[in-house]
Amino acid sequence: MSQRKAPSDAGRATIRDVAERAGVSVASVSRVLSGNYPVSDDLRRRVMKVVRDLDYVTNAHARSLAGGGTPTVAILINNITGAAFAHVAKGVEGAATLRGWLSLVGTTGDDPERELALVNLMRQQGVAAVVLLGGAYDYDEYQLRMARFARSLDAAGSHLVLVGRPPLEGAVPATTVDYDNESGAYAMASHLLSAGHRDILVLPGHAELTTAQGRLRGARRAFEAYGVPFEPGMVRHGQYDYEHGYEAVESALREKLHFTAVLAGTDVVAAGAMQALRSAGLRVPEDVSIVGYDDIPLASQLAPQLTTVHVPYEEMGRVALRAVADRREGGAGRRKGADGEHLVLGTHVVVRQSVRPPRRHG
Amino acid sequence: MSQRKAPSDAGRATIRDVAERAGVSVASVSRVLSGNYPVSDDLRRRVMKVVRDLDYVTNAHARSLAGGGTPTVAILINNITGAAFAHVAKGVEGAATLRGWLSLVGTTGDDPERELALVNLMRQQGVAAVVLLGGAYDYDEYQLRMARFARSLDAAGSHLVLVGRPPLEGAVPATTVDYDNESGAYAMASHLLSAGHRDILVLPGHAELTTAQGRLRGARRAFEAYGVPFEPGMVRHGQYDYEHGYEAVESALREKLHFTAVLAGTDVVAAGAMQALRSAGLRVPEDVSIVGYDDIPLASQLAPQLTTVHVPYEEMGRVALRAVADRREGGAGRRKGADGEHLVLGTHVVVRQSVRPPRRHG
Repeated sequence: MSQRKAPSDAGRATIRDVAERAGVSVASVSRVLSGNYPVSDDLRRRVMKVVRDLDYVTNAHARSLAGGGTPTVAILINNITGAAFAHVAKGVEGAATLRGWLSLVGTTGDDPERELALVNLMRQQGVAAVVLLGGAYDYDEYQLRMARFARSLDAAGSHLVLVGRPPLEGAVPATTVDYDNESGAYAMASHLLSAGHRDILVLPGHAELTTAQGRLRGARRAFEAYGVPFEPGMVRHGQYDYEHGYEAVESALREKLHFTAVLAGTDVVAAGAMQALRSAGLRVPEDVSIVGYDDIPLASQLAPQLTTVHVPYEEMGRVALRAVADRREGGAGRRKGADGEHLVLGTHVVVRQSVRPPRRHG
Repeated sequence: MSQRKAPSDAGRATIRDVAERAGVSVASVSRVLSGNYPVSDDLRRRVMKVVRDLDYVTNAHARSLAGGGTPTVAILINNITGAAFAHVAKGVEGAATLRGWLSLVGTTGDDPERELALVNLMRQQGVAAVVLLGGAYDYDEYQLRMARFARSLDAAGSHLVLVGRPPLEGAVPATTVDYDNESGAYAMASHLLSAGHRDILVLPGHAELTTAQGRLRGARRAFEAYGVPFEPGMVRHGQYDYEHGYEAVESALREKLHFTAVLAGTDVVAAGAMQALRSAGLRVPEDVSIVGYDDIPLASQLAPQLTTVHVPYEEMGRVALRAVADRREGGAGRRKGADGEHLVLGTHVVVRQSVRPPRRHG
């Protein structure tokens, strides 16, 4: 079968024909053909017989034998093991699949040459859009580089979409899908302050990262709103990883810094902070409260389950794909978003079990 | 600048020229150009001036402007948010980058049409290899489908690599990179048995999944070695997810099933099981011991930290890429692996804090 050419689309059997002839659902046929799902031997035999009888070839196979034509969207991500952005990618893929599009993910490892090589590779291969994920360090060079990508993709009939990144200045043909980062941090800090916490260790992330800057701004606004002085000495900057959370809390404890709560920049940082408190014999939330940011699955898998800020990562991915598909279906003539469409999704606090009012002598 | 064509390679400034002229390291130049790393304004200014003076264009940019030629490897994965296989992808990418290759990830969502469409798309775009990740349900159809992929890729000068999947039967031009799944389960079960546990709830995974079958076989062999009768009634099958772990333990407790330990099929399943025990007021490991499988970061982020089986996922990815690159560098004439090279990596138990001997009246 692998050698046989697919017949022309005219009169080609569809998956529905197979389902009908076999007297089963389309989903069952799909399951059987995948070999990745458990199905009964009987079902498989019946379906495979019809597949052979009708010389059925899947649409995707026929399409690509016919020379492709399936729109493809490329997603570029720094690190594939980062949960938050994996969920954005999942959202893009889900929405792409619904429209019969394909999606590919390329990882840059924060290397500008790889990012550039991937953007160019994708442009050459005529992808419908390139989606770049992840916070950026706010340098002029970032703006310059993205503007360059946006123009070269636009010139090739493709389109640049930035997700969770700062929008580009000026009239640049790119779409930005963002979330209300600062308000999420404001709400999260307010949650701790309203619980009575005043001595809060703040781990916003790397000082130069736009995402971290927004989270810090939101926290500061909350302190002001509650009339609580914001102590720069209570802020520790670092990468968004488990090690930073662990080390920041460990060193704060070593320095005898007094704090009754930790405002972590991400759920992963919160997990590291939690582990450090535990190693020091402190209980969460009895002795110290902790909150995170992102609401990745880890947040509800930790003990206690983490109170955090929900960021609609998967929805951001779906919105990004829809924006691209709508542009495309709007026709080449339509320049919607040509000078920087900027979509912002909301964030909100998810209250779980990691926060309690501070203890008297906390 | 985005409009300007790159000069011909002859006499083209290299990143080293830029570093030398600016009097900084190559790494610093790379950092500045990325805009993704924090650098001092002074460094950035110096480097960007030289970049403009020399009209420097990155190698990747020049390569792709010159029409590509960068070997690309495609990784196909069921679900991008699955931690274990994200680490395999990371390994492939890391090794690919070291060789100056690019890598792309496509997700199939367990949909055979998407898998097929992606394999064909990649074949048409001349990728050096297609790496398929993840356990399979062991049906004849899986063998047929993979053999078809292997032959069509081989015919196109590409190559199929299966990672963490069963090797293909017969003379099929594919490479399989696997890990010693059964031995890992044998060692993990032995660890519980040697701690004195006899009543062990076993959650191996989906009954039809090859990975789960191997883990169950390994556990059974350990019970035999310890002369402990293996009770089929203590085995609960289900998906490799948090919900399954939670529900399996919850229902076992509801049925008053007596067990002093849980042998979970994956770390994520163990996390769900841990949460269910906690909800029932049971402590880990004081009341019930738990072990997982995979050793993803979550394992050391749980409290207590999870004793589990380390699977060298990232190394498997590196090995897969090397196998492909060696074939390719061996030249088209060389058919090494043509009839199914099968590489198997070792596994071992990582002892953390989730196991204790059973309590008298456990």
